Amino acid sequence: MSWLTIDPDHPFGIDSLAYGAITIKGGSGPSSPAVRIGDAVLPLHQVCGKLSPEHAQLFDCPNLDRLLAAGPDSWRAIRLAVTDWLTDERHRDIVEPALIDLAAVEVVLPFTVADYVDFYASENHASNVGRIFRKGAALLPPNWKNLTIGYHGRAGTVVVSGTPVVRPCGQRPAEPATDPVETEFAPTDRLDLEAEVGFVVGVGSELGRAVPLADFDQHVFGVVLLNDWSARDIQFWEYVPLGPFLGKSFATSISGWVTPLSALTHARVPPVPQDPAPLPYLSGSGVPGDDAARPDSPGSWNLDLRLEVHLNGQLISQPPFAGMYWTAAQMLAHLTVNGASLRTGDLYGSGTVSGPHPDELGCLLELTWNGATPLSLPDGTTRRFLHDGDEVVLTATAPGPGGSRIGLGEVRGVVAPARVSNQSPPP
Amino acid sequence: MSWLTIDPDHPFGIDSLAYGAITIKGGSGPSSPAVRIGDAVLPLHQVCGKLSPEHAQLFDCPNLDRLLAAGPDSWRAIRLAVTDWLTDERHRDIVEPALIDLAAVEVVLPFTVADYVDFYASENHASNVGRIFRKGAALLPPNWKNLTIGYHGRAGTVVVSGTPVVRPCGQRPAEPATDPVETEFAPTDRLDLEAEVGFVVGVGSELGRAVPLADFDQHVFGVVLLNDWSARDIQFWEYVPLGPFLGKSFATSISGWVTPLSALTHARVPPVPQDPAPLPYLSGSGVPGDDAARPDSPGSWNLDLRLEVHLNGQLISQPPFAGMYWTAAQMLAHLTVNGASLRTGDLYGSGTVSGPHPDELGCLLELTWNGATPLSLPDGTTRRFLHDGDEVVLTATAPGPGGSRIGLGEVRGVVAPARVSNQSPPP
Repeated sequence: MSWLTIDPDHPFGIDSLAYGAITIKGGSGPSSPAVRIGDAVLPLHQVCGKLSPEHAQLFDCPNLDRLLAAGPDSWRAIRLAVTDWLTDERHRDIVEPALIDLAAVEVVLPFTVADYVDFYASENHASNVGRIFRKGAALLPPNWKNLTIGYHGRAGTVVVSGTPVVRPCGQRPAEPATDPVETEFAPTDRLDLEAEVGFVVGVGSELGRAVPLADFDQHVFGVVLLNDWSARDIQFWEYVPLGPFLGKSFATSISGWVTPLSALTHARVPPVPQDPAPLPYLSGSGVPGDDAARPDSPGSWNLDLRLEVHLNGQLISQPPFAGMYWTAAQMLAHLTVNGASLRTGDLYGSGTVSGPHPDELGCLLELTWNGATPLSLPDGTTRRFLHDGDEVVLTATAPGPGGSRIGLGEVRGVVAPARVSNQSPPP
Repeated sequence: MSWLTIDPDHPFGIDSLAYGAITIKGGSGPSSPAVRIGDAVLPLHQVCGKLSPEHAQLFDCPNLDRLLAAGPDSWRAIRLAVTDWLTDERHRDIVEPALIDLAAVEVVLPFTVADYVDFYASENHASNVGRIFRKGAALLPPNWKNLTIGYHGRAGTVVVSGTPVVRPCGQRPAEPATDPVETEFAPTDRLDLEAEVGFVVGVGSELGRAVPLADFDQHVFGVVLLNDWSARDIQFWEYVPLGPFLGKSFATSISGWVTPLSALTHARVPPVPQDPAPLPYLSGSGVPGDDAARPDSPGSWNLDLRLEVHLNGQLISQPPFAGMYWTAAQMLAHLTVNGASLRTGDLYGSGTVSGPHPDELGCLLELTWNGATPLSLPDGTTRRFLHDGDEVVLTATAPGPGGSRIGLGEVRGVVAPARVSNQSPPP
């Protein structure tokens, strides 16, 4: 128990200790690493210098980059130390004055995003996409159960929770359809959200060497929530043959707080059974020297994260992460199996998290069946896709110790109107 | 004329002045920015400190990142200064002792790669891909002439010329084909090169704002040669529906020397006529305030770069860049039209450069028609795809002043054998 008074149901209690980077609102100083505790944040550098000086240099910087690169031994030691500071009454005199009210800080991008990859790991989501767009064909692409499909997104437009998202402009086929296709240029009118979980790589890997399933937690530091904003009209005109590009690259929002994997040990659940069994590098089975089969190996667990999607304050969906077909460790093993190296700050998203039920779908494309059945909101409005001014908030919780629940950092974004410039026709 | 003795036909004469980053072979010091002149390199920091101190801080660093970020006015001023140092006899006493023989240095990655995007801008290449894989269907995807198709690649595996490329392992359908598809895991046996031109972004842009055609040279600093290594078997099994991923992400090689755009003014040629005319943001036509129509605007020119592909020292192809359907300015305008921001160090490739003639094709996929007609080399061997130990070298030249030719930095890579690990089956 912390000497700090925190509601036992608080999502950011002593068992969470998510990390982020903050500035003081209205201040002009640089950002600095901090840990979130209750409704306060604890900047790490100064307190660490006094109480755990051996780690202080990891926090003498604007964000979490050094902490991420430091590796699992340091991650464990620092989490233990921070827990000690906040629970041992003897440290209170030093720690309490350093706490800052959450309302007084601004969260900034918590780490420098190196490469950003997005996967497509929910069978419910991928099947719904098949039902919507490939009527009469197989629900899933033929490779879907053999490999965890992914692609690279734009790292430079990953933004922190709270950043407004400007409605993008782009090409789409004009109505009526012609052959050859005539296109028009306009702001997207199919702006969508995608509720995802993102994984943050701390420790890089060597070019030419695959990272096995069992090494997942030697490389991945923690988890963020991620909104993979998507302009469906732009995306569907451009994505064949080389994949999504401008339909996604305008913005990807992540939570400002990164929940370390070590806060999620109580969230481990068995993965979804996979049939057919994937190749050994994705299953760990029968591969000499691969210890993916040991019970605590990352190859053997999924995470029971329960997401919530809020639109203008109204809960519209509760996607369950535990039902994802491919696990985070499988995504990492696949990403690197060709020898592609990892760097500190690599980020990969799970793809839209959708459950089997209508109130568990992770994007408006599914919730409105590509706009065919508008979503009715409690406030009396309806949505096919997002309107200007709409605010999307993703939150999530995970099981903590003793039946408690841990909160993940929220990701929040408001849709700003398209910018009409000389690039787009007059309004 | 330089006071340095340089063969007038030397590809790296006074009109080239490509920039890179070097270390001293066998030394242990950090890398530093340099300019290439003839068969020598001139480290920039110290000489700049003596002769142009106002720019010296741009070179007090390991690579070209600060120069790139400094913008067009600085780029012009520094090129003028370096030209002056190397041509005015009065500076010889200071400059000559600083020169280092090219053979004594190692080139390193010239800049920090931010995001890497690859386009698909050669109509000859895209049509050949259609002929090979989509027999009976339209040669080009329906969107090909409306937009310059592109996708994000892996920035973290962009490597400098000279870096060995480990043959990647991955999934492919097993023979005979079954339904559902059974896959096998193996080193690729369809390893290919792709001869491309890469464009290096110096000055970033604001999130939410498109970069018009006419602003191309306010953002792009220069040009590299680029080999987009591709594992065709991995690529073709994975790339539907979200695009190339592991078939490309294992390595992308770029030249160590970056040729500034200002060295290529004599290489400007009119772009290929486009029919149908693309939307105004890609054509500049009829858009108030867009000066893409002025004769010297980047919206009005392509670049006459002549590439050469060498395999184990043997010339196998001479792809002409001037025939690319989409120009570099169009690629940049498209990349940003949705508001995606640019960062210093963003790199984008043109896609495989292929001409209309059989000896102008930019990849083995085309040169051997997907392996169906092996390429006979002068040394008596044949190739369907690359063998272990094969060395691929891409070079290029461009018109310089007075009928001269300027060389671009070469990109060189040797194929290293696959690493058999617990990820792959026993050999």
